[in-house]
Amino acid sequence: MEEFKNIFIIGVGLIGGSVARDLRRILPACEIYGIDASKDNLEEAVGMGLINHSSGLEELHLADLVFLAIPVDQANLFLPPVLDAVREDTLVVDMGSTKASVCKTVAEHPKRRNFLASHPIAGTEFSGPSAAIEKLYDGKTMIICEVEKTAFKLQERALQLFSDMGMRLRYMDPESHDRHIAYVSHLSHISSFMLGKTVMEKEKNEKDIFDMAGSGFASTVRLAKSNPATWTPIFKENRENVLETLKEYIDNLNNFKNLLENAEYEAVHAEMKNTNHIKSILKGL
Amino acid sequence: MEEFKNIFIIGVGLIGGSVARDLRRILPACEIYGIDASKDNLEEAVGMGLINHSSGLEELHLADLVFLAIPVDQANLFLPPVLDAVREDTLVVDMGSTKASVCKTVAEHPKRRNFLASHPIAGTEFSGPSAAIEKLYDGKTMIICEVEKTAFKLQERALQLFSDMGMRLRYMDPESHDRHIAYVSHLSHISSFMLGKTVMEKEKNEKDIFDMAGSGFASTVRLAKSNPATWTPIFKENRENVLETLKEYIDNLNNFKNLLENAEYEAVHAEMKNTNHIKSILKGL
Repeated sequence: MEEFKNIFIIGVGLIGGSVARDLRRILPACEIYGIDASKDNLEEAVGMGLINHSSGLEELHLADLVFLAIPVDQANLFLPPVLDAVREDTLVVDMGSTKASVCKTVAEHPKRRNFLASHPIAGTEFSGPSAAIEKLYDGKTMIICEVEKTAFKLQERALQLFSDMGMRLRYMDPESHDRHIAYVSHLSHISSFMLGKTVMEKEKNEKDIFDMAGSGFASTVRLAKSNPATWTPIFKENRENVLETLKEYIDNLNNFKNLLENAEYEAVHAEMKNTNHIKSILKGL
Repeated sequence: MEEFKNIFIIGVGLIGGSVARDLRRILPACEIYGIDASKDNLEEAVGMGLINHSSGLEELHLADLVFLAIPVDQANLFLPPVLDAVREDTLVVDMGSTKASVCKTVAEHPKRRNFLASHPIAGTEFSGPSAAIEKLYDGKTMIICEVEKTAFKLQERALQLFSDMGMRLRYMDPESHDRHIAYVSHLSHISSFMLGKTVMEKEKNEKDIFDMAGSGFASTVRLAKSNPATWTPIFKENRENVLETLKEYIDNLNNFKNLLENAEYEAVHAEMKNTNHIKSILKGL
């Protein structure tokens, strides 16, 4: 199969930068061009050897493959002009955490068949080029939406590359993706941010409270380190689904609070016992 | 300093069993006696070599040192008869996650000066003898309450042992302990249990949702694997403080929900940005 030679990465942060690290290993002959709204990020990425060239949208005609790894609202803005600019045989892959709006954005685009909508279930709470990690995607799930709308030959080349990155592929329609991911990813971020907020508000008045924090707190609050520039657009694009999960979460918390207020300790025990079952569901995670 | 020879551990689970593993290393000549409501746990602990003897309360007169590592409501029940049964020079240490009720329980006990109220900020989401880990306590914080109410000689011996286990010592009154620990530990468990519940309720109807879960979800939901037999009594004993933190947490979540409902994305961004500061607070955790 023909190899990708000139690869453009739009957004050289955690997600795009980690793709670059894998490309270096899998396609040692490729040239990686970076595009980023932040000149500092671009310079850093070149300095680190993450990308070969600091580039711009005007050079996209060179691209065999384009990765979009920018905030999801930006992806909606940039995807049409990117598709306009690329050649007929170029593959454009979006890596954003919401998929319905981006699929809608390009639904009628003349180059829809050049586009593949993907979401790698991988990341950390850090951001920027320095957060890029080799093999971030190894063993992780790649969710692909509307695969049938991508040209067969481009599908094939993309899926081969994702397999070479060590990813497991899952196919899903974009609406189902957005509804489910709200539960297993977006809600976790809100629960973590608000937990961090609650404890930090207390800390203003009470010194040394964090001396008492252990690994359990660190684990539940880890996602509160995430980048608001990434997450505000995600919550915006997936607003309806996120609100639904958030409502259910708050209802469950209120129910737990009521049980505790009413000293219904058997029911408190049952709430936890029934949730323990998550052990077997999360095996391997 | 005189070494502890006969050491009783009441509750040979994660916490007590991990103490046993450290004692083997620090005091190789000691004999460890286990007491547990579960005969299976005792047999398992003997079989693993975690303890030397399966024992009972009637042998406590042999003890130089007693660790209580049982659910906090049980500690309140057992502590007075344990103190009644031990010798005048025996040290009794409670390791529970709430401290006010246990300190109140023994306040007027004739052997109050034999007792040290402690809480090691260490643990995992697992339970039982097989969950015991060597060096679980190494580098962790040990919170000690009402140290002045323990006999000076016994204080000294206990603090030396905790230091040998690699722990950093912090002194605090029991009411402050319970108020602060509600924020940095107890609330995290509720947020995690209810997050797990919310997602699992959804999963009943939607297949394969957990295929989409990544390390972020696993991290925020990890504590939902914790033992309800440990945590129900903690929430019971620390009910007022836990309810206060839970109310503040729910208020913060409702506020975030309202901002999202009203499409106030700048405010949503600010909520997260302000909480990012937790990065610097949690350094090292």
